[in-house]
Amino acid sequence: MAWSRRDELGLPAFYMRADPQFLADRAARLGLSVPIRTVEPGQTLDAFAEALPVVPTGAPVADRPGEAQADTGAAVISSIEAAVADVRQGVATAVVTNPIHKKVLYDAGFRHPGHTEFLGVLAEQWGPGPWRPVMMLAGPSLMVVPVTTHIALRRVPDVLTTDLIVETGHIVARDLKVRFGIAAPRLSVAGLNPHAGEGGTMGIEDETVVAPAVARLRAEGIDARGPFPADTLFHPAARREYDCVLGMYHDQALIPVKTIAFDETVNVTLGLPFVRTSPDHGTAFPIAGTGTARPDSFAASVRLAAALGDPSVLT
Amino acid sequence: MAWSRRDELGLPAFYMRADPQFLADRAARLGLSVPIRTVEPGQTLDAFAEALPVVPTGAPVADRPGEAQADTGAAVISSIEAAVADVRQGVATAVVTNPIHKKVLYDAGFRHPGHTEFLGVLAEQWGPGPWRPVMMLAGPSLMVVPVTTHIALRRVPDVLTTDLIVETGHIVARDLKVRFGIAAPRLSVAGLNPHAGEGGTMGIEDETVVAPAVARLRAEGIDARGPFPADTLFHPAARREYDCVLGMYHDQALIPVKTIAFDETVNVTLGLPFVRTSPDHGTAFPIAGTGTARPDSFAASVRLAAALGDPSVLT
Repeated sequence: MAWSRRDELGLPAFYMRADPQFLADRAARLGLSVPIRTVEPGQTLDAFAEALPVVPTGAPVADRPGEAQADTGAAVISSIEAAVADVRQGVATAVVTNPIHKKVLYDAGFRHPGHTEFLGVLAEQWGPGPWRPVMMLAGPSLMVVPVTTHIALRRVPDVLTTDLIVETGHIVARDLKVRFGIAAPRLSVAGLNPHAGEGGTMGIEDETVVAPAVARLRAEGIDARGPFPADTLFHPAARREYDCVLGMYHDQALIPVKTIAFDETVNVTLGLPFVRTSPDHGTAFPIAGTGTARPDSFAASVRLAAALGDPSVLT
Repeated sequence: MAWSRRDELGLPAFYMRADPQFLADRAARLGLSVPIRTVEPGQTLDAFAEALPVVPTGAPVADRPGEAQADTGAAVISSIEAAVADVRQGVATAVVTNPIHKKVLYDAGFRHPGHTEFLGVLAEQWGPGPWRPVMMLAGPSLMVVPVTTHIALRRVPDVLTTDLIVETGHIVARDLKVRFGIAAPRLSVAGLNPHAGEGGTMGIEDETVVAPAVARLRAEGIDARGPFPADTLFHPAARREYDCVLGMYHDQALIPVKTIAFDETVNVTLGLPFVRTSPDHGTAFPIAGTGTARPDSFAASVRLAAALGDPSVLT
């Protein structure tokens, strides 16, 4: 769907690591005219104008929309590995991953908490690391990074430390410079508690954990400010004051960006030696194969990956 | 400022309980032409077209912008009491409160955690209660209610109970009917944890606390749904599915509405026998008296108070 609307969506050339027959079957099911061309990674640019370029995984996938197919796990894992290797070898500029169904991968022997952690391991091709992947959500007018991510809300105040905020802030500031070309990134840091604790009357962590992190970041040369009350940090006038917000937990960071730009928000992994973006939605099995899914977030992911992966952007 | 732009802002007639000389001094400081007319509450409608109607508190206030004036506490408290009594006596249809500086009130003997709790006590003029004030934030395209409010984030998972969600849901549904004229209110309930806990892998409270509350509300005749992942609950398409969201904590509920409509969001207190609204901002001492404060949220509060206070809306 994205390829067939490639001009309208402003898509740069991309190729898929997938089963060509599966893609042909799915296009037919959706009534889309999508010629598919089997290519090697290096041939993408030539093919893209006339056909969807596909590098075959070698593993056939049946077109059974909305069904978790246990036998696809190995192909999913190997396609991610191969995409990262393509970037390492210089035949691709960036990786765009699509939503995965975790249980299928676990059944195929996948041993990582999620996509992002797996990519941290694959980054070791560039060097031993440890690489610390950092999740950013980027919309057209707002970029946010949750400092803690997929944990119970109850655990947030204990997992959140000054060190974690400082470490995250450095990774974000560095990647805003080298990937996004922002010379002097401005970070706003949200408070953990309502009203950023209002002088300690609604929780002490903003004084004991968050404020010291902001002070350390500033002492270490990062233009970080806060902690600010999170509810007044995301309206249009407030957004002009920073380049990115560090939120203290998942919903605090993700609610505003998905409220403003649900279909255009891209998941970007910072802290890696390569560019990786991903649509900011799940597998959406209930609407798979119905033709109602929108390609907007995937398209935004491809556009952003191309922009961030262009070596001329890198300093 | 609001009165001088009363036509542009679509303001219905209102009066202030205040010190007339203070208002005259502040208008002069801002370079606004605001004739002030001292009135009794019943004379508002006649005066409003030509002057700002003021019922004097009898306590003079110096025009010292941005300064917490200890001697104003008693007048603030008595003006709130008098405004509620005006509604009780039928000379006003609703109360609009303005931001208060809590320390000044505490020093004057105020013994309530905040504005809203004080209003719960004043409601006892209508009967012994207990009245349970519920904070709603209402913007032009989104209404939200935080089930827990001004407490540390760390305390939220323990303070949040099934009973509290059910009790809040009933108050919200009832007031959406009788105040807002929504015949069959639809409530969406946000999950406490990221992804609403994703099957218990990111916290169990969505299964053990929130889901049972939704089930009980439904069994008790309320169209409540959820728990839903909070980050995907507030974009425009999602907002069409409900009339109001119950958020589990302050920032979860307030971030989206203030992100979308910062200057037009109104704080409405549900669960009281009278209508009370308030601008959704604080005292903003740093910009007091500078002329840069915007009257939009106050104007929205007056408009909504008038709409909700119109007896023809009440069933």
